Amino acid sequence: MELLKLFNLSPHRFRITNFVGGIKMEAENEIRREKYVADISSIREAEVRIKSFIHKAPVLSSESLNAVSGRQLFFKCECFQKGGAFKFRGACNAVFSLDNDEAAKGVVTHSSGNHAAALSLAAKLRGIPAYIVIPNGAPKCKVENVMRYGGQVIWSEATMQSRESVASKVLQETGAVLVHPYNDGRIISGQGTISLEFLEQAPQIDTLIVPISGGGLISGVALAAKSINPTIRILAAEPRGADDAARSKAAGRIITLPETNTVADGLRAFLGNFTWPIVRDLVEDIVTVEDNEIIEAMKLCYEILKVVVEPSGAIGLAAVLSDSFKNNPALKNCSNIGIILSGGNVDLGRLWDSYRK
Amino acid sequence: MELLKLFNLSPHRFRITNFVGGIKMEAENEIRREKYVADISSIREAEVRIKSFIHKAPVLSSESLNAVSGRQLFFKCECFQKGGAFKFRGACNAVFSLDNDEAAKGVVTHSSGNHAAALSLAAKLRGIPAYIVIPNGAPKCKVENVMRYGGQVIWSEATMQSRESVASKVLQETGAVLVHPYNDGRIISGQGTISLEFLEQAPQIDTLIVPISGGGLISGVALAAKSINPTIRILAAEPRGADDAARSKAAGRIITLPETNTVADGLRAFLGNFTWPIVRDLVEDIVTVEDNEIIEAMKLCYEILKVVVEPSGAIGLAAVLSDSFKNNPALKNCSNIGIILSGGNVDLGRLWDSYRK
Repeated sequence: MELLKLFNLSPHRFRITNFVGGIKMEAENEIRREKYVADISSIREAEVRIKSFIHKAPVLSSESLNAVSGRQLFFKCECFQKGGAFKFRGACNAVFSLDNDEAAKGVVTHSSGNHAAALSLAAKLRGIPAYIVIPNGAPKCKVENVMRYGGQVIWSEATMQSRESVASKVLQETGAVLVHPYNDGRIISGQGTISLEFLEQAPQIDTLIVPISGGGLISGVALAAKSINPTIRILAAEPRGADDAARSKAAGRIITLPETNTVADGLRAFLGNFTWPIVRDLVEDIVTVEDNEIIEAMKLCYEILKVVVEPSGAIGLAAVLSDSFKNNPALKNCSNIGIILSGGNVDLGRLWDSYRK
Repeated sequence: MELLKLFNLSPHRFRITNFVGGIKMEAENEIRREKYVADISSIREAEVRIKSFIHKAPVLSSESLNAVSGRQLFFKCECFQKGGAFKFRGACNAVFSLDNDEAAKGVVTHSSGNHAAALSLAAKLRGIPAYIVIPNGAPKCKVENVMRYGGQVIWSEATMQSRESVASKVLQETGAVLVHPYNDGRIISGQGTISLEFLEQAPQIDTLIVPISGGGLISGVALAAKSINPTIRILAAEPRGADDAARSKAAGRIITLPETNTVADGLRAFLGNFTWPIVRDLVEDIVTVEDNEIIEAMKLCYEILKVVVEPSGAIGLAAVLSDSFKNNPALKNCSNIGIILSGGNVDLGRLWDSYRK
């Protein structure tokens, strides 16, 4: 019950039978929306709740990139979102979902970056404290964002174990509410509001390509998009060095990795028990790309689109331009592709150094 | 007459008496629009002409930058324009203003960059040749843009003299039409379409800050904006190392410099006889900034707005954040400031090198 309360669920909306250790697969031909931790109603509620706080990020397109990819590409620039990433949508929805008593004690999370900054900003807007457990080695610009938005930084070791144990200590001491970076219905619902905007801005989209890490973004995006257009195709993009989601899809259960190795620092988390069923059921395929493809895609974002993205943010474009995508006959009829440029928080120190010489 | 025809003017709309060697000042209290080489009608005509070809660049805002500047800032992202800069508006208007016989022989210009790429792209869209005289030492990315859009590159020395003599040789050989980068009514009218969009997207704007070089952009922007809102304030931003426009305003006549020295490679041109009267009459003040302020503003554009700008593109923000702006009592009531991020074509090789190490 503790966990159900935490995620603001009533038991009848939560039917996965074993949510701590893994997922008990159910043999169902028809997937019912109600089984997920979020749905189109919770996403529309989130939209109303966060509308006055968020930016409606513009959609850009480029004939040069259309020519390179051989498709019509539409870029939803969530790097322009407050806090520099889509994460603010979910964090804002979570923070403003709390009742006054819950909110008063503040919120806590452990995150390497964008969610932490987003939660700090959302908490600041509500006037409540945000306690942020950050692992050593997190990108400097992301830590600075947390501090700029008034989050209280508590350092941990880089392991998930250390992050969780520090966070749980903070929880006990403060009585604050844990807001998980992705495995949370309120977070998933907030991220899903992207689809409501995107499919209104570019209704011709037949395919969405979404970065996948813990699965919060793609879960929300898929639930909303499939509800608006049941024939839309949802693809995930994942770095080869952190391809747990692709392995999970192949295995039919959550797979985690002993370690990850990728330039995309935002894509190193593993699927959670709330995001996995949605990814399992609604994501058609996962395109894995190499780090050098991610860097090449970043370069195109900067040089052609003129948009600053972090490596994780460029992975959707990397996927579309990859040989495995181009040569996949099943993806031939993906003509109008929506790509989510998920974030733009990247250390550019070397660039400025080059000007100062 | 040759020149009048070149700039598509009827003599009664052109009353500056000495346009080759300088400007004969007229003592008039009330400046009449008709004396300029463009006006709101030619700008609205340009809008109709180019609408289907250009991007309507979005307007971004940032609470962080509002806080830093103490004003509400609105950023018109012309770096997202086709070709990576506002220049495509004017070039497109010029190319599609030509009648079929004129157009058939192509267009020619001498430019260090953004105008050249823009003209190449516009010519490509019309299916006519573009001959581009480029001075040695022009930024690599800008030359690449010209080539990508199919412009035929002809190299010259870096001096204006060499550029002009090579261009005039090309003119003679090809019979193509010269499209000057800024000193041209069609160009000014095309650039002016920015104001039509910008003041619709952010009608609360009371002040526009515009980069100034040859004056094509600010002339069009000022003519359109003043016509829509006569009380709007037009300010120019100029690098200290190429402050010919500020000197011209102070002297009441066009001043040129023996040399320029600034990181903003796009802002090294001098006012022309068509742009000067508009700058003289409609631009309230010129804010000069140092190169290090330009770099700092670029950094903010990348790190806060997540927008790739070239140094010239960031100068409007640099001006707003400069001490001379902040401490100027005459600018105290500039509350809602529109800034044109004019272009984003910048060599980022060092950034990619840092990832490849």
